[in-house]
Amino acid sequence: MTLDKNWFSEEQAGMGSAFSLKITAKLDEVQTPFQHIEIYDTETYGKLMIIDGCYMVTSRDNFLYHEMMTHPSLFTHANPKRVLIIGGGDCGTLKEVLKHDSIERAWQVDIDEQVTRMAEKYFPELCESNDDPRAELLFEDGVKWIQDAEAGSLDLIIVDSTDPVGPAEGLFTEAFYRDCHRALGANGMLVQQSESPLYHLQLLKDMHQAMRNAGFADSKTLHYPQPSYPSGWWSAIMAAKQSLPAFREDDARNKSFKTRYYNADIHKAALTQPEFCREAGL
Amino acid sequence: MTLDKNWFSEEQAGMGSAFSLKITAKLDEVQTPFQHIEIYDTETYGKLMIIDGCYMVTSRDNFLYHEMMTHPSLFTHANPKRVLIIGGGDCGTLKEVLKHDSIERAWQVDIDEQVTRMAEKYFPELCESNDDPRAELLFEDGVKWIQDAEAGSLDLIIVDSTDPVGPAEGLFTEAFYRDCHRALGANGMLVQQSESPLYHLQLLKDMHQAMRNAGFADSKTLHYPQPSYPSGWWSAIMAAKQSLPAFREDDARNKSFKTRYYNADIHKAALTQPEFCREAGL
Repeated sequence: MTLDKNWFSEEQAGMGSAFSLKITAKLDEVQTPFQHIEIYDTETYGKLMIIDGCYMVTSRDNFLYHEMMTHPSLFTHANPKRVLIIGGGDCGTLKEVLKHDSIERAWQVDIDEQVTRMAEKYFPELCESNDDPRAELLFEDGVKWIQDAEAGSLDLIIVDSTDPVGPAEGLFTEAFYRDCHRALGANGMLVQQSESPLYHLQLLKDMHQAMRNAGFADSKTLHYPQPSYPSGWWSAIMAAKQSLPAFREDDARNKSFKTRYYNADIHKAALTQPEFCREAGL
Repeated sequence: MTLDKNWFSEEQAGMGSAFSLKITAKLDEVQTPFQHIEIYDTETYGKLMIIDGCYMVTSRDNFLYHEMMTHPSLFTHANPKRVLIIGGGDCGTLKEVLKHDSIERAWQVDIDEQVTRMAEKYFPELCESNDDPRAELLFEDGVKWIQDAEAGSLDLIIVDSTDPVGPAEGLFTEAFYRDCHRALGANGMLVQQSESPLYHLQLLKDMHQAMRNAGFADSKTLHYPQPSYPSGWWSAIMAAKQSLPAFREDDARNKSFKTRYYNADIHKAALTQPEFCREAGL
């Protein structure tokens, strides 16, 4: 069948596939200096934020991405206190980070303030922790911010960006990873969204290689479902300046907060490589 | 954006979401006594089979489903010799089953012969083992076939059907599970596709309950990605007449055949329940 104008479709760049949600209203639209943002109400996925034609966040399925971009690395670092989020303007990653009692400071550095303003208006549940005294929301270029950061001043850097084209392109380079490496402490870690294992296997391989070239001693791929992103199967790469230690499994089992997808067993399962990924060296 | 007529979209029943592939040609179409089958060529997913408007199989992503519908249960049963596939007309499940040397007989019982004829023509790679002397392809009603089957005559029943509406409705009932239970030997197992954990959680709960009511002592949920099915996140339920034993991990590690998704570690990972599934008792 062909979908009519009651649907918003993302043609997934070069992939010959599309994901669509049935929309009930267009709620907002803004052209920022960086990108085009649209907000829709949908029939079954709650609110929907589109950036430059791509699905960014829906009320219904963002918990998968936000939990998997945060808790695996936060329960792997021995004692994460200072966390930098690059991108993450919808504030959902920040909210998950601040659930960890060890956190003393969390900086969210997104180049586009309008993403956060739209999130505050249409995804208030993601912005619940924006007023946390530990949080600092900055609207600056993350690439520049990390270049200027004090050496060894961070425990974890979370790169929660759009795809590696347009504003986010500079976040997938060896030069950027070198700057991250310098800004991290001795036990520092980096985690970055790494697209679809089915669609972007070469990108995943290139990211691992660039992180190793930049000085990270270890890196691993996490897998998780994310229906509104291309192929519905998404990933993140965790890298560490030293060998990635076993995660703090007891702490994960006894966590003081609720999650909907993540738990200690899912942590282990997400690190498991399907056969074609294992063969690709992931 | 709106997709034009170069795309085939499935509006996922009642879910307000759709998956689409860019098509390059319509290759075939047939109305059978049971359903409407269409075959397309796509830009990036190879061949595509649609039944009654729903994605059934694509060349590109069927390996995920077919491997996960077979190898976890076949490596759990101690010595599977006699396997029944209900549905599975595209023959991809049969092909995976016959990779196991222990198999002595495999019956594929699909109500609609045209599914297999279309698969032979457009998905020959799935039909490679149709001439295996251990295989028997029957075009009959699986519900009736299992009622007539000799008690205790099967080791594993794989229910590889369409959604629980239309021709496949009778395959999701306690009465059907009772017939399966009777036809299975003492260590017998049942595995059935169980839709999307995100979209169909109640169906999953109901299936577990109906299997237990029918006499199965144990049942577990497997999770795996399947981009062309609703939400891109799919599942299967494995049930057993006795407690599900630990799987034959050494045999899985040393398997004599190649897979693209399944391996021994993925077997364990697939059995892990996300938090909301655990809370739902899966």
